Amino acid sequence: MRYELYYWDGIQGRGEFVRLALEEAQADYVDVGRRAGGEDAMIALLDTERVARAPFAPPFLKAGRQLIGQTANILLFLGPRLGLVPDDEAGRLWTHQLQLTIADLLVEVHDSHHPIASSLYYEQQRAEARKRAADLRERRLPKFLDYFESVLVRGSRTANHLVGRRLTYVDLSMFQVIAGLRYAYPHAMTALEKRCPALLRLHDRIRARPRIAAYLASPRRLPFNEQGIFRHYPELDA
Amino acid sequence: MRYELYYWDGIQGRGEFVRLALEEAQADYVDVGRRAGGEDAMIALLDTERVARAPFAPPFLKAGRQLIGQTANILLFLGPRLGLVPDDEAGRLWTHQLQLTIADLLVEVHDSHHPIASSLYYEQQRAEARKRAADLRERRLPKFLDYFESVLVRGSRTANHLVGRRLTYVDLSMFQVIAGLRYAYPHAMTALEKRCPALLRLHDRIRARPRIAAYLASPRRLPFNEQGIFRHYPELDA
Repeated sequence: MRYELYYWDGIQGRGEFVRLALEEAQADYVDVGRRAGGEDAMIALLDTERVARAPFAPPFLKAGRQLIGQTANILLFLGPRLGLVPDDEAGRLWTHQLQLTIADLLVEVHDSHHPIASSLYYEQQRAEARKRAADLRERRLPKFLDYFESVLVRGSRTANHLVGRRLTYVDLSMFQVIAGLRYAYPHAMTALEKRCPALLRLHDRIRARPRIAAYLASPRRLPFNEQGIFRHYPELDA
Repeated sequence: MRYELYYWDGIQGRGEFVRLALEEAQADYVDVGRRAGGEDAMIALLDTERVARAPFAPPFLKAGRQLIGQTANILLFLGPRLGLVPDDEAGRLWTHQLQLTIADLLVEVHDSHHPIASSLYYEQQRAEARKRAADLRERRLPKFLDYFESVLVRGSRTANHLVGRRLTYVDLSMFQVIAGLRYAYPHAMTALEKRCPALLRLHDRIRARPRIAAYLASPRRLPFNEQGIFRHYPELDA
């Protein structure tokens, strides 16, 4: 099966959580949005008048004739096919639950630079962003990181994986969360990292996995920038 | 199987999407948070140090020894057990995808009255809420409602259900979205409802289903209020 990933060109964004799973599994996939005409092809598939089961927004995956939207839902679909989830239903639901909790965190990180409207520029909502980012740094990130640290430490005796004894897609996503937070909020993370040593070790182990390391060193990995979810604005990291 | 639903007392909130599915299926369930001592029991189950696979936040469901968190994940679990999803995997993923899109909308509705921080009172962020609510009314609600209207009209010849020919949990959730938006934004909805006649008919049909009608008339259905997701502040609905 050749998978087609549809996402905006130029940013890691939510597409990156799907890319990491496809790369780790060495799946056959095309990153359509980065090809010539790819974004136009993507926008055509969002047309609910013409496309059955059109997604609301990118990223989405095409697998044969099936279109699957919502990042966590794509990973729910891919998990068993890529060998990145446990075999039992309870383990799969738990993995998905953690992914949905990451999705909630991503909304909060995004809204820390866009608290008023996605349709406005950051510079048009900078004053409000300062307030929201302060709440993110002081209340929300500690709560989320404490939670995931505890899940990781308690989830397995060795704290090597968030779910059970094997790698799952949520480990890959957690790598991306830590990497993104370090990019966007380096000052805040210096203090916060003391709370989550096991998450940092997980991040380092994922980064060193051969297929992930090769991906990160390739041109397929876009750099973080100020168009994605994780943006570095020094005034928000004060 | 007697299900235990854990959610805050006093609000419909995200728990209501689970309640509607349990009520429609006449499932055997206990709304633990509304019992004496129930919220304390709920908080105890959020303790990651003591509870394996503890959820990040309510609502969550206890089914035997299994704890399941994240509203859409609970419905993913319950759907086949309550007969509220299609039989095929593609249909189940599509139903879940629509539920996750509703979850995204709910975050935006919540943040229209809390754009800066959930830990602050509404009155402490009213100025920012006015701006965010304007964007919700003028850009985001039209986009979401147009999408779901189109899914409903195209999803089945008769436009009776969002997915296929039978009732699913996402129809019940869409009823709640329309009811909530009408409560929170009555003025804005007067204009917006012209865009989504099929969604309104779906809302009316769900409301008239015997088990749902009985539930809505019972003391188990809490009224909308200004502690939940859908809050009516006239200044945000100008």
